[in-house]
Amino acid sequence: MADPTDADLPDNWGRWGADDELGTLNLITAEVRAQAAAEVRTGHWVSLAQPITPNPMVSGPFAPTTADVSPVQHLMAHTGVGVAADLMLVTNHHAKSTHLDALAHWSRDDEVYPGRPRAQAVTAGGVTHASTTAFAAGIVTRGVLLDLAADGPLPSAHAVTSHDFEEAEKRQDVEVRSGDALVLRLGWPATPVPGTPTPGISLDAVRWMHRRGVALCAPDRGDAQPPLDPDGPSPLHGVALGGLAMPLIDAVALDDLAALCAQLGRYSFLLTVAPPRIHGMSGVPVNPIALF
Amino acid sequence: MADPTDADLPDNWGRWGADDELGTLNLITAEVRAQAAAEVRTGHWVSLAQPITPNPMVSGPFAPTTADVSPVQHLMAHTGVGVAADLMLVTNHHAKSTHLDALAHWSRDDEVYPGRPRAQAVTAGGVTHASTTAFAAGIVTRGVLLDLAADGPLPSAHAVTSHDFEEAEKRQDVEVRSGDALVLRLGWPATPVPGTPTPGISLDAVRWMHRRGVALCAPDRGDAQPPLDPDGPSPLHGVALGGLAMPLIDAVALDDLAALCAQLGRYSFLLTVAPPRIHGMSGVPVNPIALF
Amino acid sequence: MADPTDADLPDNWGRWGADDELGTLNLITAEVRAQAAAEVRTGHWVSLAQPITPNPMVSGPFAPTTADVSPVQHLMAHTGVGVAADLMLVTNHHAKSTHLDALAHWSRDDEVYPGRPRAQAVTAGGVTHASTTAFAAGIVTRGVLLDLAADGPLPSAHAVTSHDFEEAEKRQDVEVRSGDALVLRLGWPATPVPGTPTPGISLDAVRWMHRRGVALCAPDRGDAQPPLDPDGPSPLHGVALGGLAMPLIDAVALDDLAALCAQLGRYSFLLTVAPPRIHGMSGVPVNPIALF
Amino acid sequence: MADPTDADLPDNWGRWGADDELGTLNLITAEVRAQAAAEVRTGHWVSLAQPITPNPMVSGPFAPTTADVSPVQHLMAHTGVGVAADLMLVTNHHAKSTHLDALAHWSRDDEVYPGRPRAQAVTAGGVTHASTTAFAAGIVTRGVLLDLAADGPLPSAHAVTSHDFEEAEKRQDVEVRSGDALVLRLGWPATPVPGTPTPGISLDAVRWMHRRGVALCAPDRGDAQPPLDPDGPSPLHGVALGGLAMPLIDAVALDDLAALCAQLGRYSFLLTVAPPRIHGMSGVPVNPIALF
Repeated sequence: MADPTDADLPDNWGRWGADDELGTLNLITAEVRAQAAAEVRTGHWVSLAQPITPNPMVSGPFAPTTADVSPVQHLMAHTGVGVAADLMLVTNHHAKSTHLDALAHWSRDDEVYPGRPRAQAVTAGGVTHASTTAFAAGIVTRGVLLDLAADGPLPSAHAVTSHDFEEAEKRQDVEVRSGDALVLRLGWPATPVPGTPTPGISLDAVRWMHRRGVALCAPDRGDAQPPLDPDGPSPLHGVALGGLAMPLIDAVALDDLAALCAQLGRYSFLLTVAPPRIHGMSGVPVNPIALF
Repeated sequence: MADPTDADLPDNWGRWGADDELGTLNLITAEVRAQAAAEVRTGHWVSLAQPITPNPMVSGPFAPTTADVSPVQHLMAHTGVGVAADLMLVTNHHAKSTHLDALAHWSRDDEVYPGRPRAQAVTAGGVTHASTTAFAAGIVTRGVLLDLAADGPLPSAHAVTSHDFEEAEKRQDVEVRSGDALVLRLGWPATPVPGTPTPGISLDAVRWMHRRGVALCAPDRGDAQPPLDPDGPSPLHGVALGGLAMPLIDAVALDDLAALCAQLGRYSFLLTVAPPRIHGMSGVPVNPIALF
Repeated sequence: MADPTDADLPDNWGRWGADDELGTLNLITAEVRAQAAAEVRTGHWVSLAQPITPNPMVSGPFAPTTADVSPVQHLMAHTGVGVAADLMLVTNHHAKSTHLDALAHWSRDDEVYPGRPRAQAVTAGGVTHASTTAFAAGIVTRGVLLDLAADGPLPSAHAVTSHDFEEAEKRQDVEVRSGDALVLRLGWPATPVPGTPTPGISLDAVRWMHRRGVALCAPDRGDAQPPLDPDGPSPLHGVALGGLAMPLIDAVALDDLAALCAQLGRYSFLLTVAPPRIHGMSGVPVNPIALF
Repeated sequence: MADPTDADLPDNWGRWGADDELGTLNLITAEVRAQAAAEVRTGHWVSLAQPITPNPMVSGPFAPTTADVSPVQHLMAHTGVGVAADLMLVTNHHAKSTHLDALAHWSRDDEVYPGRPRAQAVTAGGVTHASTTAFAAGIVTRGVLLDLAADGPLPSAHAVTSHDFEEAEKRQDVEVRSGDALVLRLGWPATPVPGTPTPGISLDAVRWMHRRGVALCAPDRGDAQPPLDPDGPSPLHGVALGGLAMPLIDAVALDDLAALCAQLGRYSFLLTVAPPRIHGMSGVPVNPIALF
């Protein structure tokens, strides 16, 4: 794979001004939303989130011990009355949690999009620029599933390219348009299995997203692990999130969506992305809902 | 106010069997979902969640100190690489957080709906019956806003009755039907102001919800504080959640929704309720989205 | 084993008044402290605490994942400056943590020593009576090790009795006196191995402690697991902590102390018990130090 | 104040080898410990720790809300049995907590004593070199109080020098020797009051500690706030902790100790420093005990 120089990489820094915090979400226009609304016809719907089984917050004599790894640690509280209440400790970026990456999650040469010093944007007290605040009220747009795993999971270490995308568009009779959320099914779990190279999104595929005007990307398996190109930036986190300022929904679960799309014969839908409305974080768990 | 005996109170225990965990969500049929879909026409949308400003998880020399109370405590983690990541500690039941109460949040005579011993359903390791698992994938249904505060906040200590509901239906030209999510605007903040009695939902209003077949209730201010009837069960938490097994969305923020409804001249919509997909909790923060 | 009735059990409720929070720590007089001071001659010392290896507070991509169980969860914080700082989440009662049980840890018929309603003493906001506040400044007294495992660990399921104690006193040429901290080595780890019954302190042994005026008890393995008498109260937690109001140091590690005592030929010493000075807890980790 | 160059600053990097983790604790020899033991005569004792009132871990309807700042957040757990148990979230470095700074808390030019790259010593999974592990079993040595505030708190912004130390030695008839823990009472609270410059330890005073061979320093108020010399390193944290590798006990409370010393007419004692025996942290709360 050619070693891209920074000058070659697609980039949106400055495209929406020096104070922008939305990045490619700016592409979701009123017209896009109207097209999204037009997708809702029957009331069928499906979740794109992995289910999360919490662990007890701490091990100990009063809660069962578990060795499973979970993004959520749970603690049932003593309320002193006949009411059950609890707390949870959430790791925002975790392969077992479907979560939305804020633009400040990534940085480039110690700067956060579109050019803020990282030390100023990311502080011990929280994220002050390009945080989850930008999309805390939610995101609503048209979603398109490109199911690259309709015939089974992609091969190990496969580099997903624009060719794969365009084949899927033809096969599914659907077109990815500006402002869309691009949902990508590679057929692999979000948590890599040690020793088995995963497939992943290539730089060519990210360039295609840029040309098409993708507003948001939601893959089941995003950047390959190990990296497709160990010397370059990671295509999805480094170039799409970091350079294009395209928010990512990491670690979605797409088997139910793929089955419903196949059943209905439709691969476009309205997508609601409604995280807990929490400001100032670098990421947040989310349960995206596809509506048909 | 007459002191109701238990025999008088509306009740759904047993209506959907001894193992049910959905309660009134059973009323959301395919027909209801189709009617919900028919509400989506223009792509307008709005969040019903309060924005949450997290506090630093702990005070100390490396994060600013704040005296504000927040349902979310935030901690920026040391990653050792140029990536920002964080954790959050979430109080699931909190007046400053729009959250979904699981049926096991409440109990009646040490039993959880529809008759499980509380000690069995609510354990130190999590909730094993009628927890958030029941709706973790999300809820999609038709929503109706009854804006009881169109002319300003309801008076202090006002008991909301079925009469208020039916007046609003006429005024807004809308009808609450079986399977609907009932969104109620009293015009009061979710966090009570000490010394000022809030308005609240009366038992008569809950009986009306039962007759109409409301699946889900989302008020900005639910049970009055102090209680309308200090000797009886609280109408919304005690009777609707505890007896009717009707999940509640506590502490919604409705000013934006009311403004959009007034602007569009429409008080019904499709409502997506998509919490982080976490199992086994007594409640969970949520960002409900109304789609028009 | 005879089934003791409550009337038979040794008991100190009321002995030091209705508001007491110290229990048997009242037995540590100025004279006892002077005798403790007389034990310090050479400056040899040893810790009685188990070392604790913390777990990362949460698993995830930025901290190693571990399946080990730990009483302490650790989180390195982002400080934004070249200073390392961290937080820890501590489970106060844990078999892998040497910790001091406050009297309110136990209750008897829903009452906490010496007769407070538990609902009043133990609240969602902390412990208001007989908490760690009582000994937060520290405890200093004479300590005596009775090494019951000098010839190897006690047999599985062995019931430790006053006879064992008096044999050890003779063997070691030491006498347990009023106000002493009694340190007991059974030669077993604090964490039970499933399927292997541990030895444990019998009710007879607790009666002996009561007669001798033991102020504090620190065993490596305290109550047998499974219980010696499944129908009666546990001798150490139920009768000594709950009835005698004798604080316990749970889960001490005594191999180093036993070796030093054998080397010096002395089984008495000054013991400092200096937990973090935290008020209002049901227990607290501690690192007891024996000084010779 | 003259601007010291690095070459001027006292330094112990390399003095005890390239792998050392003890720093000046190496100065506590068997002879020092024997002298410490000789200080214990009457059994009088006192704690040097600030009492800590925990906050509820989170605010909310089931625990009281407080605006006070605390280094400890407390959570009473649901155990489902009549046993009280809790957890605590501890901020290790906090002005309201008497705590022990590990050597890795500080770094110099991105290196941790005695020359490890900070990125290697301080990781997202914990501290791997010069952490609390080094003194987790405890520290026992001779302590000396120099009470600089016998006639009242030092003046605002006063720079404590070697002259102050030697005046106190004469006045108290005591001598600070190699291996001693130096306890310093300036008469100021550990938490600075905004707008009031505190007194603090000067570089001259740190040089004196170096010459005398102080093993450990425990001041009520250490580095001045604002700094005495804004352009140089902070004397206690930057030079003593960072350069001399002298562990600090930050934020001790000394009124009780000063009163007892005055009453007994003795300013030396045996000091036990016994933190919870937790490995791999950058700091840990501690309750130092002075024994006479």
